Amino acid sequence: MPKSREIHLIQRPTGAPKPADFALVERDVADAADGQVLVENLLMSVDPAMRPRLTAGQALEEAMLGGALGRVVQSKHDGFAVGDLVTNRLGFREYFTSDGKGLTKLTPDPDLPLTVHMHALGGTGFTAYGGLLHIGQLKDGEQVFVSTAGGAVGSVAAQIAKIKGCYVVGSTGSDAKAAWLRDVVGLDAVINYKAQPIRQALEEATPKGLDVYFDNVGGDHLEAALRRMNTLGRIPVCGFISGYNSGHSSVSNLSNIIYSRVTLRGFVATDFMHLYGDFQRDMAAWLKDGRVKYQETIVEGIAAAPGALIGLMAGENSGKMLVRLAN
Amino acid sequence: MPKSREIHLIQRPTGAPKPADFALVERDVADAADGQVLVENLLMSVDPAMRPRLTAGQALEEAMLGGALGRVVQSKHDGFAVGDLVTNRLGFREYFTSDGKGLTKLTPDPDLPLTVHMHALGGTGFTAYGGLLHIGQLKDGEQVFVSTAGGAVGSVAAQIAKIKGCYVVGSTGSDAKAAWLRDVVGLDAVINYKAQPIRQALEEATPKGLDVYFDNVGGDHLEAALRRMNTLGRIPVCGFISGYNSGHSSVSNLSNIIYSRVTLRGFVATDFMHLYGDFQRDMAAWLKDGRVKYQETIVEGIAAAPGALIGLMAGENSGKMLVRLAN
Repeated sequence: MPKSREIHLIQRPTGAPKPADFALVERDVADAADGQVLVENLLMSVDPAMRPRLTAGQALEEAMLGGALGRVVQSKHDGFAVGDLVTNRLGFREYFTSDGKGLTKLTPDPDLPLTVHMHALGGTGFTAYGGLLHIGQLKDGEQVFVSTAGGAVGSVAAQIAKIKGCYVVGSTGSDAKAAWLRDVVGLDAVINYKAQPIRQALEEATPKGLDVYFDNVGGDHLEAALRRMNTLGRIPVCGFISGYNSGHSSVSNLSNIIYSRVTLRGFVATDFMHLYGDFQRDMAAWLKDGRVKYQETIVEGIAAAPGALIGLMAGENSGKMLVRLAN
Repeated sequence: MPKSREIHLIQRPTGAPKPADFALVERDVADAADGQVLVENLLMSVDPAMRPRLTAGQALEEAMLGGALGRVVQSKHDGFAVGDLVTNRLGFREYFTSDGKGLTKLTPDPDLPLTVHMHALGGTGFTAYGGLLHIGQLKDGEQVFVSTAGGAVGSVAAQIAKIKGCYVVGSTGSDAKAAWLRDVVGLDAVINYKAQPIRQALEEATPKGLDVYFDNVGGDHLEAALRRMNTLGRIPVCGFISGYNSGHSSVSNLSNIIYSRVTLRGFVATDFMHLYGDFQRDMAAWLKDGRVKYQETIVEGIAAAPGALIGLMAGENSGKMLVRLAN
């Protein structure tokens, strides 16, 4: 019977989450019974979408939920063998027992680092791929804006748009991330929204307007994009990070969608699961030939997980924020 | 050479338009030259969408533009004969000469009043039809909310939804219009938003949530609807009358579209011209068998046109606002 340390939410944050909102708790985890497996988590994902769940959805005084990659260390389940890698939604803990529901076996690509399965070749990459190509109906050569372009989803969305021959503008919140997007990724224009007013900077960066805005931010970024949308433009809405801490994010010029006949569409990755095979084939190839680049911010140990989430909301990560729980 | 009286915009309104923003001007109109027709307007349409053009788009010191139905009174054009009825975009004037571009010959339905071609069987009806069925992808039996349900577009949208077996809630701004919608049209629930807070009233009226919100208003109506949208709900955005006078209409909870994967789509009727034949067939039948009812507010004479537009923006019309210029 292993001991497992896990992160509990002990009070709902007001505004930005802070360390006192979380507690590190040690629990006994039962050995695998018949039909069960015991899983040790190796890597866990830290995502902006976790923030709204702290306000509503995540139970208090219980282990938090979140995407993770684990290894089966005991198995009395016919479908899993010791050593199998499994993705799961039970992050924020070191060990758990499971009857197998919600576990997906992962066969890692031998030519790529394991960690890419947690971002570019995993859920965040798939969110960018389907959000841009399916929800956003991106066409080759269009004018594209991606917000949080230095983040895990945004950086992949921006690079897919480049691969499709588009003119791509990205926004990010630091000079270092801006330099990576400009010099390494090769976006056509990069805006550090903390250094320049987003509205004016986006106007200057988009002389041909915008056909697609991949929105991770809402608020002032969405307002700025709505001013630039071309006729029949599309705005796949992936996230609204500008409102996650405050609970609201106001948009004053939504009426622009009428005259330009713009579509805004909220989505989650389950809306386009039929594309998962295409995504894995395309993205593995793009990663191997270097056409999709990535950054990772990896912190060590379950005790660091609350700080990782707090840092993510403050923009302290470069690329995907991960917590390594074991090797 | 007839004299024509026409309405000019002489200054851009701040807030609600007022009589001093307009002037009645008399002009000489040339007789029809070779290849031309002279048209006398009979009826002109007054629409909420005219308000944004007063702020930007409509030239000052020129005759205003707007939908109208006229009769050819002189013709030196092979395509038109004296007596032909023609729809045109040159309302707000009594006469005009034309080379025929922008004129569409109308064959009125002998079993219906001529005026219905200016609303339910014309552009406003078509906007409601395509906005609901094509942009909104309405399915039989869904949960539907229509704002400005007493207006020309809203009343048709609400009744089409009823014909499709939907549960339909309408909002309007007076007890008289609410009574017509409840007792004559037969909506399932009617909200007078001036008598009840829209958010709470809509929550109480939609126990099964909303699949489609046909939005003519934006602002607080859209916020209230966003709280009630079911998964994969659709919001065809036809108008944003709440912001037309002020120039902006703020929405604070747009992030709701992510979790429920809602689509908002701005549109104009030209987006679905391929449905015009279907629309005319369906709507003529619905009008003749009484399944689509309508109200009209008709004022007399070109001098009354500014007041009609001012009154429309204040909600003084019941149903379609028209100005009769001649018989």
